[in-house]
Amino acid sequence: MEFENRSIVSVNQFDLAGLDTLFDLARRMKPIAARQARSNVLDGYILGNLFFEPSTRTRMSFASAFMRLGGQVNSTTGTVNSSLAKGESLADTITMIQSYCDVIVMRHHQRGAAAEAAAVSSVPVINAGDGNGEHPTQALQDLFTILEERPGRGVDGMTIAVVGDLKFGRCVPSLVNLLCLHAGVRFLFVAPPELQIPGAILRGVRDMGCQAIRTSNLDAALEEADVVYLTRIQDERIADAKVRATVRGSYVLTRAKVESRCRKDTVILHPLPRIDELHTDVDSLPNAAYFRQAANSILVRMALLLLVLGKQADVG
Amino acid sequence: MEFENRSIVSVNQFDLAGLDTLFDLARRMKPIAARQARSNVLDGYILGNLFFEPSTRTRMSFASAFMRLGGQVNSTTGTVNSSLAKGESLADTITMIQSYCDVIVMRHHQRGAAAEAAAVSSVPVINAGDGNGEHPTQALQDLFTILEERPGRGVDGMTIAVVGDLKFGRCVPSLVNLLCLHAGVRFLFVAPPELQIPGAILRGVRDMGCQAIRTSNLDAALEEADVVYLTRIQDERIADAKVRATVRGSYVLTRAKVESRCRKDTVILHPLPRIDELHTDVDSLPNAAYFRQAANSILVRMALLLLVLGKQADVG
Amino acid sequence: MEFENRSIVSVNQFDLAGLDTLFDLARRMKPIAARQARSNVLDGYILGNLFFEPSTRTRMSFASAFMRLGGQVNSTTGTVNSSLAKGESLADTITMIQSYCDVIVMRHHQRGAAAEAAAVSSVPVINAGDGNGEHPTQALQDLFTILEERPGRGVDGMTIAVVGDLKFGRCVPSLVNLLCLHAGVRFLFVAPPELQIPGAILRGVRDMGCQAIRTSNLDAALEEADVVYLTRIQDERIADAKVRATVRGSYVLTRAKVESRCRKDTVILHPLPRIDELHTDVDSLPNAAYFRQAANSILVRMALLLLVLGKQADVG
Repeated sequence: MEFENRSIVSVNQFDLAGLDTLFDLARRMKPIAARQARSNVLDGYILGNLFFEPSTRTRMSFASAFMRLGGQVNSTTGTVNSSLAKGESLADTITMIQSYCDVIVMRHHQRGAAAEAAAVSSVPVINAGDGNGEHPTQALQDLFTILEERPGRGVDGMTIAVVGDLKFGRCVPSLVNLLCLHAGVRFLFVAPPELQIPGAILRGVRDMGCQAIRTSNLDAALEEADVVYLTRIQDERIADAKVRATVRGSYVLTRAKVESRCRKDTVILHPLPRIDELHTDVDSLPNAAYFRQAANSILVRMALLLLVLGKQADVG
Repeated sequence: MEFENRSIVSVNQFDLAGLDTLFDLARRMKPIAARQARSNVLDGYILGNLFFEPSTRTRMSFASAFMRLGGQVNSTTGTVNSSLAKGESLADTITMIQSYCDVIVMRHHQRGAAAEAAAVSSVPVINAGDGNGEHPTQALQDLFTILEERPGRGVDGMTIAVVGDLKFGRCVPSLVNLLCLHAGVRFLFVAPPELQIPGAILRGVRDMGCQAIRTSNLDAALEEADVVYLTRIQDERIADAKVRATVRGSYVLTRAKVESRCRKDTVILHPLPRIDELHTDVDSLPNAAYFRQAANSILVRMALLLLVLGKQADVG
Repeated sequence: MEFENRSIVSVNQFDLAGLDTLFDLARRMKPIAARQARSNVLDGYILGNLFFEPSTRTRMSFASAFMRLGGQVNSTTGTVNSSLAKGESLADTITMIQSYCDVIVMRHHQRGAAAEAAAVSSVPVINAGDGNGEHPTQALQDLFTILEERPGRGVDGMTIAVVGDLKFGRCVPSLVNLLCLHAGVRFLFVAPPELQIPGAILRGVRDMGCQAIRTSNLDAALEEADVVYLTRIQDERIADAKVRATVRGSYVLTRAKVESRCRKDTVILHPLPRIDELHTDVDSLPNAAYFRQAANSILVRMALLLLVLGKQADVG
């Protein structure tokens, strides 16, 4: 997989070799991210951190990743006051902004916006979320975390319980795609029927030679899972008030549930923010990995930025 | 013309020698802006990038210009949450903020705000737009672009078609002022009667020894023009609904029109954003200069910042 | 007092030795803040400048302080578009953001938020304002200014007239606390009865061995004061319309009043912004110290950031 001067719009661009390259480099970022080593490899570079759709955590994460490598960040948040609001095309906005920076990270409310930006941009564009399209670096940091939490065991043959809103969330399809590059992964899709994984994804998993089962039985899935990926169910996504009442509280992880159902080494993940579906009493369990998952965003984003700028060899 | 420690509030401060100094330095910025050379001449300097009236592109352009020279940027956008909103005077705001930075770039909704800030500030203030007053660096980058697009031919004796909203736009008067410093410039002001250039500007042009003609005939003007400067007509500016309907579509550049009416070397400019008055099929014509015009903002702003900080000799 | 890796949530953490350490270091920051010396001691460090409750001046002041020391700043303003708005706990937000930076400065609308953030954060948290709780660095810069304006005389035995809104303002209680660490300070609390200093603070002053008098007589207080600390009375704080009418204009400093009532060396302070309670004709008096007070925020914040990061010895 080629990275230099390429835009990263979808996880579908990644093959196993590309993931290895990315994750090996991400691991080498650890001392720099922890400020134990200093890197100035991106001195002189400017990141255009374009959050037309705002997101504090993703914006700050990319900004810190770039700063840890010595680069400078030029940000924008929202579109209310920008030329986009005045009716300027996204293509024109990108054509102008590309002359201000060396790489663009972009979040936009519209599906397809990242591909559109990548098509016109002379600098690499990294998709930080395009509506209900993709958020590829989230999936990359999720997969990276799974590997880091299961040292020496990899992903092949793993069972993962994917829980919560599997119909509307943006995170799950991308992570599923990346996992399916591996052999024999078994997916337990745990959700209320109204929010189950779409059939197309189920078929895609099976076409890739992996297994997929739909269930609403969280407890049973927890007992089988090597990894649990919990997502939040937003009430508003469920049209039927009766169903909403039934669902509430049913797809929730508490310490008691984790301790009674999961193995000690079952990895618990959540893309955050969590509200009440993941109780704080789970946090202190050694296998609660979601804050390490969030911190890993810095490592993966540092590595990806270096790769698309062709600067990985200069890290030293 | 003196630059060091001076505020730049109006194009009227510029003479031909000052423009030469600025543009020579801007050309020297090319390798640095393209990241082929690295400059740290503004290491340790802080820009106060005060966009009390927001503008993504102008704010990001000044920020990148300062970063390319190794400086750091401290920005603010809007006034809703600031002390200005609580009734603090602009003079007080500037008096406080000047102790946080070494140079101020300011956009404010009120005409005269830049001059007011410059009057109290102990650091240079660059006007990035003061209501319906001026936006001097836009005019400077426009003139710079004309010179760059017509190498060896300069501005003297040139014919420029200025098209669109000549009554309410902020860009046109400043560019006209700068062009009038040159000899024998011929202005074709092309607009619907309701949006024609004010008589005072017409007289000012003639007082400076240049020619000025008002017309509503775009096609004829295109045939004579060395440079076409297109601006957008905002519907809301035209009070009469019948006139609005007539005007719509009449001051529009399409590839067909440019190819049939303009010479091959006629320079096409637009301050952007463009909506439907400048068709995208014009973009690939060699003489479509508007995105180069936008990119030139970085060069001109880098040069201006260096000059007001007295750091031009240190660029090397 | 220990600083390294500690959070600064309240002025109550400070003892006299701690204030000496902080202020000695702040004085050493003067050439760096004035860009006469260059410091890169915080090269590689990232400040998480979290203004969940916006404040242009405090945010920009902390940002400039960090930049003057060679660090980089990662900011956020407001909560509308953040995970906090989606119901994420402050503890979770801080737990995530701490992996993006080395120190956090935080302003939040809720009293107690700074302590809550400090409790979960692995990096130091500096309270930049927590609702009607505290804004400790404001009080520190106020005390530092008093010392700088009265060289060689210190604070012991000083008389300070604290004027205006003593009931609702956040600045006054913290400054009073710091002053009470000193011997024999005499407080003249000058306010309309509705906005007088709460009895608890009065008693606290006396318990610390200092004197406290409540009065509504501004003129008499000005005659006795070594320092005058003026705060703004916001109309809306006074419920009774008749009282509001009486109060308006009664707690105002004009040049005439200062010249006729104060000594030439009486220090005039105001935390700013000022509206009409402090006339601009006072500004040119040598003892009008409020803009120096604002500029001192940079020195005190630079020093505090160095101390909590344990980098004061590396300044050189």
